[in-house]
Amino acid sequence: MGRLNPVEYADASAEVRAVYDDIKTSRNVADVNNFWKYLAHDPKTLRRTWESLKEIMAPGALDPLTKEMIYLAVSTSNGCGYCIASHTAAARKAGMTDAMFGELMAVTGMANETNRLVNGYRVPIDPAFD
Amino acid sequence: MGRLNPVEYADASAEVRAVYDDIKTSRNVADVNNFWKYLAHDPKTLRRTWESLKEIMAPGALDPLTKEMIYLAVSTSNGCGYCIASHTAAARKAGMTDAMFGELMAVTGMANETNRLVNGYRVPIDPAFD
Amino acid sequence: MGRLNPVEYADASAEVRAVYDDIKTSRNVADVNNFWKYLAHDPKTLRRTWESLKEIMAPGALDPLTKEMIYLAVSTSNGCGYCIASHTAAARKAGMTDAMFGELMAVTGMANETNRLVNGYRVPIDPAFD
Amino acid sequence: MGRLNPVEYADASAEVRAVYDDIKTSRNVADVNNFWKYLAHDPKTLRRTWESLKEIMAPGALDPLTKEMIYLAVSTSNGCGYCIASHTAAARKAGMTDAMFGELMAVTGMANETNRLVNGYRVPIDPAFD
Amino acid sequence: MGRLNPVEYADASAEVRAVYDDIKTSRNVADVNNFWKYLAHDPKTLRRTWESLKEIMAPGALDPLTKEMIYLAVSTSNGCGYCIASHTAAARKAGMTDAMFGELMAVTGMANETNRLVNGYRVPIDPAFD
Amino acid sequence: MGRLNPVEYADASAEVRAVYDDIKTSRNVADVNNFWKYLAHDPKTLRRTWESLKEIMAPGALDPLTKEMIYLAVSTSNGCGYCIASHTAAARKAGMTDAMFGELMAVTGMANETNRLVNGYRVPIDPAFD
Repeated sequence: MGRLNPVEYADASAEVRAVYDDIKTSRNVADVNNFWKYLAHDPKTLRRTWESLKEIMAPGALDPLTKEMIYLAVSTSNGCGYCIASHTAAARKAGMTDAMFGELMAVTGMANETNRLVNGYRVPIDPAFD
Repeated sequence: MGRLNPVEYADASAEVRAVYDDIKTSRNVADVNNFWKYLAHDPKTLRRTWESLKEIMAPGALDPLTKEMIYLAVSTSNGCGYCIASHTAAARKAGMTDAMFGELMAVTGMANETNRLVNGYRVPIDPAFD
Repeated sequence: MGRLNPVEYADASAEVRAVYDDIKTSRNVADVNNFWKYLAHDPKTLRRTWESLKEIMAPGALDPLTKEMIYLAVSTSNGCGYCIASHTAAARKAGMTDAMFGELMAVTGMANETNRLVNGYRVPIDPAFD
Repeated sequence: MGRLNPVEYADASAEVRAVYDDIKTSRNVADVNNFWKYLAHDPKTLRRTWESLKEIMAPGALDPLTKEMIYLAVSTSNGCGYCIASHTAAARKAGMTDAMFGELMAVTGMANETNRLVNGYRVPIDPAFD
Repeated sequence: MGRLNPVEYADASAEVRAVYDDIKTSRNVADVNNFWKYLAHDPKTLRRTWESLKEIMAPGALDPLTKEMIYLAVSTSNGCGYCIASHTAAARKAGMTDAMFGELMAVTGMANETNRLVNGYRVPIDPAFD
Repeated sequence: MGRLNPVEYADASAEVRAVYDDIKTSRNVADVNNFWKYLAHDPKTLRRTWESLKEIMAPGALDPLTKEMIYLAVSTSNGCGYCIASHTAAARKAGMTDAMFGELMAVTGMANETNRLVNGYRVPIDPAFD
């Protein structure tokens, strides 16, 4: 009835191992992090989530650092402890400095504040924005 | 008992006008948007919010476009309609292209999805992230 | 497939009318507001919600104005437009002044900001608070 | 100033014991779980919450397993760690299999993603849905 | 700077049309709803979201009605107006009766209430759930 | 890549020390709590947050206890564990009794419940509230 256990590579099915292998190659890491080891309990969700994430986080109109910082801003706003820890690490790896982290937090905090001021004051959308 | 009305410049106190003037000068706009005209019902909150926003959104370790996109990601995640409209406009003005907007939304959506997968699977933080 | 319609008194069952009557008497109003007219589609939820609300919002260790302001703070934080409108009206009726509204919004906004700063900086609970 | 302690049966008032007894009988358990032992600090909230939960979670148009899975989906979306743990256990007890859990998480995650895509793209409601 | 417009079939690229066609065939509808017409501004997100949704919402360990109700519960909890409207319609189409809708709302509301009671009372997870 | 460490007074810059000193004097405490020791990694955010909080939480149209309870209601609703712990302590210090805490939680829980009932039933705003 309790917690699930992580699915380690040695115990994983061929389908799960294929995803793990692709993550390890794509990210150049020795092992996948816990997120994937828990999703592995549902191989379809594991595969779909990895394929989606790989497509979304690839360099494009936005660079990987900007994408990681956006991911961290959302995770911070939502209060997901694991996600904050893992995406802080990922953003650091992608080049986020202490100063950038500080400004990212400041913007995230301020957005949460003004979102509520807007709600409470019931501010109508300006025609210029609509 | 109903909605407040916006505080227009012509009807504003000297204290409120001073903030409006600073916003107009700083942003090079002819009039302030509704957010400020509603906050003006509480001049202290008007002034404090403007001073904070001016400090936080100034160019620093992160450029203004990145800051606007983070603001938009958080507002989108929180579902604040006014904030989404106004910060989409602000991000566009700062240089956000259609392609950047698309990727910003994709990352914001994906972060919201994986935040919940992490919650539900009760994923423990990897020692490497802690 | 579309929206529900409000259940008006004239069309309501005896069970629903009994709740409407109690709301009207308790609040000294001529008609119930839309919230109740929609909940009336599920008479058990109508009755249970009214009984709970009547018990919770009654004067106790906290006075009705304080309770209405807490209700408004939470509704503002959650971005529920109807709830913000109806509980602003209720708080005004219970004595909330413009100045109190302004401070309520300021606290609500600030709490939302610092909640996220705490999340992002991963601040551990001080032993004194635990 | 710190945490509350759980109210154990031996130390509980008659009013609290009556609720504990009803929970134990209704659920056929030897002891109530922590949620109730903390709510017991406010006997009115303890009783009201239990009476509401008993009414809402009883078999009706929806079966108990479906109700537990909805409860778990909402708790996962909100990130309430205790609620995720307790309602995962309750859903398992009501018959949720590993495959059902996997699909429940997949739907919960996807709903959170598309909710934000809708917000950010500012999608207007189709007339057919309104 | 304002809102996007929906991408109608007549104006869509071949890539977008292919997704629209698959949605129309899979759902047996004459036209796609607005959600897809707005996502079409980012064809990769359009395709990825549709492929994910098709996989997740297919009958499996959970039937389509249960999945739609979970989607609606999460969307209701998050306050996404469009999503509530469209998934209420989808759940109705899949067989949700008025009584089922009423119970779904009751569970969703109650989960949101007890999630917060748990937070505020700082309830520790029972060993049996962990 | 991991967690930040708290910035202790002995290791703090003059700018940070000045804020710490003001907090200690204003609150008559021997040391600042962890929130400030983590924000100190970004001295501008430290100073701005403290100045804002000092202005917002000062006695005004609302007394300090009411403000602390609103802060706690919002933090509870948002599920910020640190904030719940620290503002419970602050509210207790400002005079919150056990009975007041119980009612505060009851209102916070109920508001979260009815916010979602309103969302799901799509209740339109009564003209009287608009």
